[in-house]
Amino acid sequence: MTAAMYTGERTFTTAVPTLGPPEAGQVQIAVAYTGLCGTDLHIFHGDMDARVATPAVIGHEMSGTIAAIGDGVSGWAVGQPVTVMPTLSCGSCHACRKGNSHICHKLNFIGIDSEGSMQSTWNVPAEVLVALPEGLALDEAALIEPTAVAVHDVRRSGLTASDFVVVIGGGPVGQLIASVALRQGARVVLAEPDPGRRETAKGFGITTVDPREENLVDYVLRETDGAGADVAFEVSGAAAGVSSAVEVLTTRGRLVMVAIHPKPKEIDLHRFFWRELEMFGARLYQREDFEEAVRLVADGAIPARQMISRVVSLEDVEQGFLALESGGAMKVLVDCRAAAS
Amino acid sequence: MTAAMYTGERTFTTAVPTLGPPEAGQVQIAVAYTGLCGTDLHIFHGDMDARVATPAVIGHEMSGTIAAIGDGVSGWAVGQPVTVMPTLSCGSCHACRKGNSHICHKLNFIGIDSEGSMQSTWNVPAEVLVALPEGLALDEAALIEPTAVAVHDVRRSGLTASDFVVVIGGGPVGQLIASVALRQGARVVLAEPDPGRRETAKGFGITTVDPREENLVDYVLRETDGAGADVAFEVSGAAAGVSSAVEVLTTRGRLVMVAIHPKPKEIDLHRFFWRELEMFGARLYQREDFEEAVRLVADGAIPARQMISRVVSLEDVEQGFLALESGGAMKVLVDCRAAAS
Repeated sequence: MTAAMYTGERTFTTAVPTLGPPEAGQVQIAVAYTGLCGTDLHIFHGDMDARVATPAVIGHEMSGTIAAIGDGVSGWAVGQPVTVMPTLSCGSCHACRKGNSHICHKLNFIGIDSEGSMQSTWNVPAEVLVALPEGLALDEAALIEPTAVAVHDVRRSGLTASDFVVVIGGGPVGQLIASVALRQGARVVLAEPDPGRRETAKGFGITTVDPREENLVDYVLRETDGAGADVAFEVSGAAAGVSSAVEVLTTRGRLVMVAIHPKPKEIDLHRFFWRELEMFGARLYQREDFEEAVRLVADGAIPARQMISRVVSLEDVEQGFLALESGGAMKVLVDCRAAAS
Repeated sequence: MTAAMYTGERTFTTAVPTLGPPEAGQVQIAVAYTGLCGTDLHIFHGDMDARVATPAVIGHEMSGTIAAIGDGVSGWAVGQPVTVMPTLSCGSCHACRKGNSHICHKLNFIGIDSEGSMQSTWNVPAEVLVALPEGLALDEAALIEPTAVAVHDVRRSGLTASDFVVVIGGGPVGQLIASVALRQGARVVLAEPDPGRRETAKGFGITTVDPREENLVDYVLRETDGAGADVAFEVSGAAAGVSSAVEVLTTRGRLVMVAIHPKPKEIDLHRFFWRELEMFGARLYQREDFEEAVRLVADGAIPARQMISRVVSLEDVEQGFLALESGGAMKVLVDCRAAAS
């Protein structure tokens, strides 16, 4: 087998470790593709070296087929296409006990806190497996994990088909949120200053606004007959994005906080009071989000294939990250197939 | 009849205007009591002179009995005890059309935007009347309007009896929120630095913490076995109150924004994301909140009588405001009864 190992300082090395058979309760996956996400890019930059023990096999957006099945595992078959919901919760913390195990206080996020999928063969606990329908291309299936994030974000918003939705920020998650909301029948506009990202969105059938060229609030008021937006997703991580998200909302409008804001940001709390606005933090996904994401990617509701900007080999993971950090790529996949290395 | 008229510059003058009979659709109320609230104090201070046309009869927390009934009004009887839900909505704005007429964009808030109850006799549209049960003391009934605010705030929080609740700020609304939450079976702690207000709360059976003496987060974690609070009400209007409200919450905890924050405040959005926190703006009340407030005051669930610090006459309204601004009074009533003037 082959694995791409993160060894620190923006460096990946290819290794050929020996992998034993799956242990009891485990399944061995022949990994097909692993997508690179923003968190992986943070790891590449060294920003998460305190959390990631090097050398590390990272990666958590993946697809593959079952290669072997450990003792005590039932309901799965060798050769079956699968993806992984890469979270393991403790079951006993306050979050788990309240039914929010997806944001467990001791969450083991597979691919960050434990070994990920950037390798040709991977042993995982059977509980994290999610079945894929026959016929779904495995490169597209690697988009299921970020799609599940978007499904969860949209679910947190309580979206209805009559809603007008503003998505602020057109990276992969913003594009996926817009796609999921469109699929649910909502009217959607994506605000994104980068022309390349706006072009990508247009290719997906998403209406876009360049907030540097046009006042977003004016645009939304015009499109909603003066009412304002029902839902705003803040996916930009910028202070201006937060302000805009609050400002575009109609009475009782819902703001979903998707982006990571490492530092506190100013919020117009008077407007929250005056219009009875609502804000919902949204992180990761629950099992039902993941299963919905499988359906959406499988039935073509999500432009999974069009989102794949580039596919690199396990030996060229660094090149993939460089493409990602240049901002020109939407989604970069690593081809992990044994034959590919 | 006698009326207290706000004439600007911290001044009230008593006048004896002539009041005609109620017009069609109106009811004439013999006003019993009018409570002074924080907004009235802002008016007294001149902070709302741009909105309030002087000379003005203000006042919107009231009780009384029906003195006369205009043409076309049915379902009411002379002598019947009533209070008023002091909001008139336009019925056609975006808020009204979405079922949020209580925060209508063109709201006529009676007692600010139109003539209020600080007079012995008052004509109002019949639609704003709310019936009082026989036997409810009319001084206590003047507390129904602020209680309706608290009922609405608690309803916005989605409170359940198993919740641990933190109320930040021990003014009248904070005390009422704590009382309503207690009534619903929740565990409640009120954080308030003022010793007099803490003493008042203790008299109402409310547990208190002095956040200057004890770390509120530590207290809540200790009381909740490390989980944090399910609900926080920010009623202080202070930046520190906002920070504490976010910090005390458990996973998926709900923050209700009750206080008015004229300027944007910093919020820890990363915590909103990480713990999937939720924030709800809450303003005024809906009819069901008002009717619930009548029930709560009538059955003694709210310490209405104990909250009345002082009763002044229509001639002594200024004294009432001075008592209020000194911070020593919880609720000041104006006795508006004709015999009292």
